[in-house]
Amino acid sequence: MFFLRRIFEDLDNALAHDPAGRNRLEVALAYPGVHAVWGHRISHFLWNRHLKLVARIHSNFIRSATGVEIHPGAKIGRRFFIDHGMGVVIGATAVIGDDVMIYHDVTLGARGGDVGKRHPTIHNDVVIGAGARVLGNVTVGEGSRISANAVISKDLPARSLLSSAENFVI
Amino acid sequence: MFFLRRIFEDLDNALAHDPAGRNRLEVALAYPGVHAVWGHRISHFLWNRHLKLVARIHSNFIRSATGVEIHPGAKIGRRFFIDHGMGVVIGATAVIGDDVMIYHDVTLGARGGDVGKRHPTIHNDVVIGAGARVLGNVTVGEGSRISANAVISKDLPARSLLSSAENFVI
Amino acid sequence: MFFLRRIFEDLDNALAHDPAGRNRLEVALAYPGVHAVWGHRISHFLWNRHLKLVARIHSNFIRSATGVEIHPGAKIGRRFFIDHGMGVVIGATAVIGDDVMIYHDVTLGARGGDVGKRHPTIHNDVVIGAGARVLGNVTVGEGSRISANAVISKDLPARSLLSSAENFVI
Repeated sequence: MFFLRRIFEDLDNALAHDPAGRNRLEVALAYPGVHAVWGHRISHFLWNRHLKLVARIHSNFIRSATGVEIHPGAKIGRRFFIDHGMGVVIGATAVIGDDVMIYHDVTLGARGGDVGKRHPTIHNDVVIGAGARVLGNVTVGEGSRISANAVISKDLPARSLLSSAENFVI
Repeated sequence: MFFLRRIFEDLDNALAHDPAGRNRLEVALAYPGVHAVWGHRISHFLWNRHLKLVARIHSNFIRSATGVEIHPGAKIGRRFFIDHGMGVVIGATAVIGDDVMIYHDVTLGARGGDVGKRHPTIHNDVVIGAGARVLGNVTVGEGSRISANAVISKDLPARSLLSSAENFVI
Repeated sequence: MFFLRRIFEDLDNALAHDPAGRNRLEVALAYPGVHAVWGHRISHFLWNRHLKLVARIHSNFIRSATGVEIHPGAKIGRRFFIDHGMGVVIGATAVIGDDVMIYHDVTLGARGGDVGKRHPTIHNDVVIGAGARVLGNVTVGEGSRISANAVISKDLPARSLLSSAENFVI
């Protein structure tokens, strides 16, 4: 029952975010971003049970089915919505809060040479536009909006509005 | 016969645009951007016959086969050519004229919160470079050239030349 | 034996570049960027034996399996590593040296209207970040670093550091 309630929460959340969505059945059958999040829950479960190789093979299968690559180690909150999804990359040490929405082609990645916690932490209620790259162990504060194609590699305070293709780098 | 003539028109158009193309057979077998446009014609036909769920499932299947996501509701003119294609997203209320060419990773998308006609209108003879994002119910005038990674969210007059990663936003 | 040694060289090279990689078996099974390079070696072999249509169909199959599109004509050196890979496009006349690393969504493409050698030449030890576009018959000098979402369409001298979303165009 718990499992089913989460499924419905995800379907309703996708409908709330996407004006092109028409009903739960359509979301369940035709939203690869939703399928990718469901797939990640399984990969992440396997990863935490020390079935790491199986987890990576599974997440790679989800990537070929959906175009979304989420490392099984990434920690993701509730009602995470990926719209369209093709090209999304989320790294092993990324942490994502609740009610976050990202568009296709968003990268939550590392910078070359970083070790340990090397991917971003995204707080609640953040929206990240298509093609934006958030790189390194940086924090994006609650309620921030990052526009399409922006590049971020330092901390963003809460409720930041980063306009399109603006750069916020060290 | 009409159907066949359109197929040949698309094959010849791809050859005219891509200097790496060698003959019609190669285009028919190895150009996912061409396959995506053919798939969209079927999705759009189904959508207009009120088979909306079938249309979305079909367009999602075309997305996984080609990497190109075109909402079945989008209206697209003749000789539309998508080069490479991976990552292209075209929204439900987008309108595209004749002889338009786009590269991979182009987004014709909406801005969060918009409703109704919320995707771009692209006039004839426009070329849009890889990774460019055109967002919202804006018009791109005839003969415009938008370069790679540019972000557009207001109207562009005819014959605009928008250089690489330039932004043209409100 | 020669063939096997190259396979191991690629596996070890991926492990050296990616701190999330754990062992050779994981790389061999779950790294689409590595699979794409192996696929390209076969496509390129076929292309050079004048089996051009077969080569293009093969490279298109590799594209659908990995999300990486490399034209069979492209010349690629040793220890080339593509991280993540989705959305990468490498054109027919591109030339890539040894020890080059690129991230997902990188384009080594042409500009409309160019003919002949119309794609970039990338020298040894170059790193190119996610979403960067290198366009036209330009040279990127040895040891250069190009950051995410940058757009390049003229020659870069050796050891250039091009910061994120900077543009270096004519």
